[in-house]
Amino acid sequence: MGAGRIAVSADLQRHFNATRELTARLVAPLSDADATVQSMADASPAKWHLAHVTWFLETFVLRDHMPDYRPFNDSFAYLFNSYYEAEGARHARAARGLLSRPSLTQILEYRSHVEATVNAQWDRLPSSALALIELGIHHEQQHQELLLTDILHVFAQNPTFPAYWGSPDADGVAPAKPLGWIEGPFGVHLIGHDGPAFAFDCEGPRHQVMLRPFALADRAVTNGEWLAFIDDGGYRDARHWLSDGWAWVQREAIIAPLYWQQADGDWRTFGLGGLRALNMGAPVTHISLYEADAYASWAGARLPTEAEWEVIAATQDPDGGDQLDGPGAIQPSSAHQDSLFGNVWQWTGSAYRPYPGFCAAEGAVGEYNGKFMSGQFVLRGGSCATPRGHMRASYRNFFYPHQRWQFTGLRLAKDV
Amino acid sequence: MGAGRIAVSADLQRHFNATRELTARLVAPLSDADATVQSMADASPAKWHLAHVTWFLETFVLRDHMPDYRPFNDSFAYLFNSYYEAEGARHARAARGLLSRPSLTQILEYRSHVEATVNAQWDRLPSSALALIELGIHHEQQHQELLLTDILHVFAQNPTFPAYWGSPDADGVAPAKPLGWIEGPFGVHLIGHDGPAFAFDCEGPRHQVMLRPFALADRAVTNGEWLAFIDDGGYRDARHWLSDGWAWVQREAIIAPLYWQQADGDWRTFGLGGLRALNMGAPVTHISLYEADAYASWAGARLPTEAEWEVIAATQDPDGGDQLDGPGAIQPSSAHQDSLFGNVWQWTGSAYRPYPGFCAAEGAVGEYNGKFMSGQFVLRGGSCATPRGHMRASYRNFFYPHQRWQFTGLRLAKDV
Amino acid sequence: MGAGRIAVSADLQRHFNATRELTARLVAPLSDADATVQSMADASPAKWHLAHVTWFLETFVLRDHMPDYRPFNDSFAYLFNSYYEAEGARHARAARGLLSRPSLTQILEYRSHVEATVNAQWDRLPSSALALIELGIHHEQQHQELLLTDILHVFAQNPTFPAYWGSPDADGVAPAKPLGWIEGPFGVHLIGHDGPAFAFDCEGPRHQVMLRPFALADRAVTNGEWLAFIDDGGYRDARHWLSDGWAWVQREAIIAPLYWQQADGDWRTFGLGGLRALNMGAPVTHISLYEADAYASWAGARLPTEAEWEVIAATQDPDGGDQLDGPGAIQPSSAHQDSLFGNVWQWTGSAYRPYPGFCAAEGAVGEYNGKFMSGQFVLRGGSCATPRGHMRASYRNFFYPHQRWQFTGLRLAKDV
Amino acid sequence: MGAGRIAVSADLQRHFNATRELTARLVAPLSDADATVQSMADASPAKWHLAHVTWFLETFVLRDHMPDYRPFNDSFAYLFNSYYEAEGARHARAARGLLSRPSLTQILEYRSHVEATVNAQWDRLPSSALALIELGIHHEQQHQELLLTDILHVFAQNPTFPAYWGSPDADGVAPAKPLGWIEGPFGVHLIGHDGPAFAFDCEGPRHQVMLRPFALADRAVTNGEWLAFIDDGGYRDARHWLSDGWAWVQREAIIAPLYWQQADGDWRTFGLGGLRALNMGAPVTHISLYEADAYASWAGARLPTEAEWEVIAATQDPDGGDQLDGPGAIQPSSAHQDSLFGNVWQWTGSAYRPYPGFCAAEGAVGEYNGKFMSGQFVLRGGSCATPRGHMRASYRNFFYPHQRWQFTGLRLAKDV
Repeated sequence: MGAGRIAVSADLQRHFNATRELTARLVAPLSDADATVQSMADASPAKWHLAHVTWFLETFVLRDHMPDYRPFNDSFAYLFNSYYEAEGARHARAARGLLSRPSLTQILEYRSHVEATVNAQWDRLPSSALALIELGIHHEQQHQELLLTDILHVFAQNPTFPAYWGSPDADGVAPAKPLGWIEGPFGVHLIGHDGPAFAFDCEGPRHQVMLRPFALADRAVTNGEWLAFIDDGGYRDARHWLSDGWAWVQREAIIAPLYWQQADGDWRTFGLGGLRALNMGAPVTHISLYEADAYASWAGARLPTEAEWEVIAATQDPDGGDQLDGPGAIQPSSAHQDSLFGNVWQWTGSAYRPYPGFCAAEGAVGEYNGKFMSGQFVLRGGSCATPRGHMRASYRNFFYPHQRWQFTGLRLAKDV
Repeated sequence: MGAGRIAVSADLQRHFNATRELTARLVAPLSDADATVQSMADASPAKWHLAHVTWFLETFVLRDHMPDYRPFNDSFAYLFNSYYEAEGARHARAARGLLSRPSLTQILEYRSHVEATVNAQWDRLPSSALALIELGIHHEQQHQELLLTDILHVFAQNPTFPAYWGSPDADGVAPAKPLGWIEGPFGVHLIGHDGPAFAFDCEGPRHQVMLRPFALADRAVTNGEWLAFIDDGGYRDARHWLSDGWAWVQREAIIAPLYWQQADGDWRTFGLGGLRALNMGAPVTHISLYEADAYASWAGARLPTEAEWEVIAATQDPDGGDQLDGPGAIQPSSAHQDSLFGNVWQWTGSAYRPYPGFCAAEGAVGEYNGKFMSGQFVLRGGSCATPRGHMRASYRNFFYPHQRWQFTGLRLAKDV
Repeated sequence: MGAGRIAVSADLQRHFNATRELTARLVAPLSDADATVQSMADASPAKWHLAHVTWFLETFVLRDHMPDYRPFNDSFAYLFNSYYEAEGARHARAARGLLSRPSLTQILEYRSHVEATVNAQWDRLPSSALALIELGIHHEQQHQELLLTDILHVFAQNPTFPAYWGSPDADGVAPAKPLGWIEGPFGVHLIGHDGPAFAFDCEGPRHQVMLRPFALADRAVTNGEWLAFIDDGGYRDARHWLSDGWAWVQREAIIAPLYWQQADGDWRTFGLGGLRALNMGAPVTHISLYEADAYASWAGARLPTEAEWEVIAATQDPDGGDQLDGPGAIQPSSAHQDSLFGNVWQWTGSAYRPYPGFCAAEGAVGEYNGKFMSGQFVLRGGSCATPRGHMRASYRNFFYPHQRWQFTGLRLAKDV
Repeated sequence: MGAGRIAVSADLQRHFNATRELTARLVAPLSDADATVQSMADASPAKWHLAHVTWFLETFVLRDHMPDYRPFNDSFAYLFNSYYEAEGARHARAARGLLSRPSLTQILEYRSHVEATVNAQWDRLPSSALALIELGIHHEQQHQELLLTDILHVFAQNPTFPAYWGSPDADGVAPAKPLGWIEGPFGVHLIGHDGPAFAFDCEGPRHQVMLRPFALADRAVTNGEWLAFIDDGGYRDARHWLSDGWAWVQREAIIAPLYWQQADGDWRTFGLGGLRALNMGAPVTHISLYEADAYASWAGARLPTEAEWEVIAATQDPDGGDQLDGPGAIQPSSAHQDSLFGNVWQWTGSAYRPYPGFCAAEGAVGEYNGKFMSGQFVLRGGSCATPRGHMRASYRNFFYPHQRWQFTGLRLAKDV
């Protein structure tokens, strides 16, 4: 093994162990019961997240590259496969919350076992396995964010509104700066991932796009601005809404972002720090694409396309902004307003579809992205719950237009 | 206080504490997660049962009879009221399984606190409070059985099929005795509860009924007999079924009792002792009224009415048969076949309706029974999961005709 | 053939042809489209009723008793079988309204063909066929009422509220008489059908019942009285309601009987004569068992049992009261208040279950009643839409407790 | 008025009357009942289509431009508004099939009245009204196609499988030509509508797109080719399917295109000409986007983007191919394989989203397209049921990915 390869490998191992350790720190406040509950079919129990990312490593790294590897538990492949059809039958997604056993303690033992085995085998693993470990790290980072948003959803169903962590520092309640506009470059530009650094398959191929003159807002829409939309009857005026969105608003009786509560005329929001007063300067979050689109229409603007967003974001530091560094006050804030990264995922007006020339990877990991390319919209930029280091300008997140339990917000765009 | 009153009171206190202690023993194997999961809307989490029976005592005994009583926790009335409209708003039934907090430990502290307070106040409580404690004991006994059937349902959803307790003794697998018939008395008879001993309001008033000549089977229908029904195509022949039952069989693709599994041609059943071979001599259980009625039709017989059942049962010891004495092998067995009591609840052909002259109690506890008198059928006799001492010949249990997660079976009847 | 047999047969033939003719008169106002629409799964298109009663005759009389009979149309057995499992596969009930063809004209031709064939063959038909024709007459009478209630439901969905027939005479708007009570006989009494006259199988066997002292209201509850229940908050007070009923009221947002509309503070009702002002003296109709039971509870009374109703009704003329004689003003009125028969079906507190010793008939017609004996409640007395001549004191109608598109009302009872 | 304006106006009037007349010819075989039935919420009754396109003219042309115009019937605005929120409340879409009245005859009278009024007023109408008449013509053409696909869906629910028209000529059953590929131009190209000719707002603005090298199949995928996909297990292999598509296939038990039936091993298809043998050379139709995408994946190809399709189609005659000229054999055929237009709508891989710079029209007609731009995919080219003259290279049709009751098919594309 050459020296360069060894250095890369050592970096990867550090990254691997740091990622695993961050997960452990994030779940430290969880009881066995907290980690078991599933509050809706879209979300998963914390125990499931902890086990699933471990099953991913056990299966695609250990099982596939260690000839004599014996699974930690024969039932775990059935219990903790998410959606890999090629990997066989699996427990129904909506029934994940019925599994009081294995316990959180057993899952943590499973994690330790797989981590220890990976570390013990490290020097014997082929480079194809290392590539899968790198994928596994990024996969686990995605689940770190999901784990936090899912546990927030669980706690939001509880009439006692438990706080996962204590209150954030007061520096987050600064007012928002006045809204400005960044003029975007137009004509032919390149977007999408290229090069040796890690990216998910859906981020490529890098390709040319044609842009018309546009401008992107220099900060996200705030809670204060959203309140003006509500107060102007935004949720009751069909003209602002996509037809599917209007049907959703009426069917679900939506009157505000998820986790907003009105008591005695004042709005409060529920977050990982518990119930608290609305922070007017912070970006609005927990909104659907439908709400984002209606707000933009009401504001006389529109959502950016993902290409517009990316050509501007490409000049910024993807590790900047308000992202996840560890346990603590995890919620959008009015700090770091200048960054396109972090704080809230920004809905774009782009449907999540393959880039020209896209080819899914071979084998089970080929199911990672491509098969989800219908019905969803692209979000960009990461959020306060995205682990720092995970983000890229080319990064494409995607959700259905009605979903809003992630830290989803919006940044306006307009033609110029 | 007279000596008789004191003796009664002391007996009641012993009964109270013994009941509370039995509950504690029954839940000893539960983890916090086990106690949190709700596997369907009909069932409740174990934690909820534990807290609800305690809330019942705290509310109707302590709050209503101890002027300065402060609730243990202000949110518990909202969380643990079951269906008492008069007691105000409450957490949605189907969402009970979303409450990871309060924890099992906190619920057990709640139990201890209320028990200790009741015991400390015992000599100061008026007789109306003692009557409510007596009701509370019987209420808790009902929830002991529900707790067991609900946790069985949770574990049955788990692909790893955990056993709540170890295996039963082998003496339960004796063959069933040949089926015989008990000729019932006919003409005018009295049924229903009367006298000072405890009974639920729906068991009275005692009243005359007119019976025609009939016979009641001298034991319950067994698993072996049920297998013959299956093998004869019983689940596929509309002629045997009530119309609602046939629709249910087709819609739910029912082919056997709940918890029966077929593997390699052999049937197994899942119970609190885990997965095991079918015990041919034991009473069939976990069947719906629809299945019971179809079997009876197939067998050329019918279900007994509740009056027929009661006039025969009135001559037997209600504490006999296979009932719950404590943790251990809780499942129907082929022992104690002669008793009309215990082993499996027996579906009757009687709709659950008020007896002539029935009046619900005043106040919130008046919601205990009367309001459920539509759409349900009466079951009689108690089961292996009914606490010994809880049963009476006049006891009326009731479930909807499709429900089968209780230990429900059947005993045939016929005209003679 | 003896003279008596001939006379009976001639009477039957007159009855047969009169019944068929009444059906024809009832559907005269229908367009092809009117006769095609199905407004809910519980109801059927008029075309279906017209064809189904004809299929019943064609199948059980002609096919089964005329060796060389050829079906009028080979697809009709599939299209117009209602629920006879023994007669094979059939068109899904909820999809009956998708059949624009065969047309109403074709269905009327089918009717003429079968009628003509029955009449042509009359003297050659065996007595078993005549018995089935008698059943077929009563069957068609039942469908005459269903046809009217189903077309009323269709028109009630139409925002233009078409009137099926013109307005009734004004004599129906007399005030109700003051409510009085009929004391019932108590002790052992006989109910149920016996003897050679026609009755459905579920009306027998005649058997002894034990009655406690009771009284039955001497008229039905009126619209005016119901308004007082509404105005007193009856639909918003859980204490009056069965638990299933309360869930139904909340889920369906029920605030008044079906077909009641409030405009500018005044209630109107929709009927076969169109929208009109509430007739305060007429019996309330289009209420569910849940509503009937809640009203009785609110009024400090209860529903009668079917035995109580029958022992009093047995002394009245079943052809009396307000029943269907032909096209015209078909709706409950304040005329004929003294009769227990006609005007509105009266919900009883009795679940629809078999009488002691009940045995369903052999063969396909054995599916007529017995298989529906779960989940439904008995109604007694017939309504303004029941063909005169169809009613008996022993007659048992049955519907699910939430259903209310029939002419259903209530008569109070109480213990004395 | 200048001579040019008069000529244009005369042309428009001829087009208007020809369109109205074609509608009349298409519905000639309908009975009142046929025209009333609604077989699913996605579809509408024929009567509704006939009235709705007339209401559109009555409202936006007559009411808005004729000061003293009185509506033909005051209830029609409520009954026949489709989705124009700005036009007020309307009858629920899923309940359109409950309206047996107004009758087909009344609707045809309504049509005649509005047509006559438009013609009588023609010379007095301002040019803004003429523009709305032009929109109204194209609107009615869209509903001509929907009317045919909706009535086909109605008849497909009927077990007697009625034929709307007789059989097509035999020339349609020629074999398909061998599949060839058209190489597309790459680099920067213009797509979208521009200029004075009519187009819907969503077809513009005309704008530059960047294309990579690609090829488009020179004919659509045929029934014969689809059979190979089925026989190869295409519907049972998750690897070919989008995740949403795979869930749909399993939930709905999809095993073939809509209207395919298997009997005795042979496939038949149901169409407006009735049930007939599968035409192997004709384009497959009545498939969802999910099926189209899965087929392309199985075939090692992909769906074209709408830009790719348009740049090639721009060189063809949009009035060519197999399109609707009048009553008769309306179904895809193997004739005219060379045209990109007609025969079957071709699913593209493009989500239906606004073009850069898109602005919806002002007022109620602004709800025509823009609000539907979420969750749907673009289809191109028109079908055998699209009125000849209605099609354009820039034309964008759109449906949800699971919908398949239109004449939807596919044409493969690939990267080169």
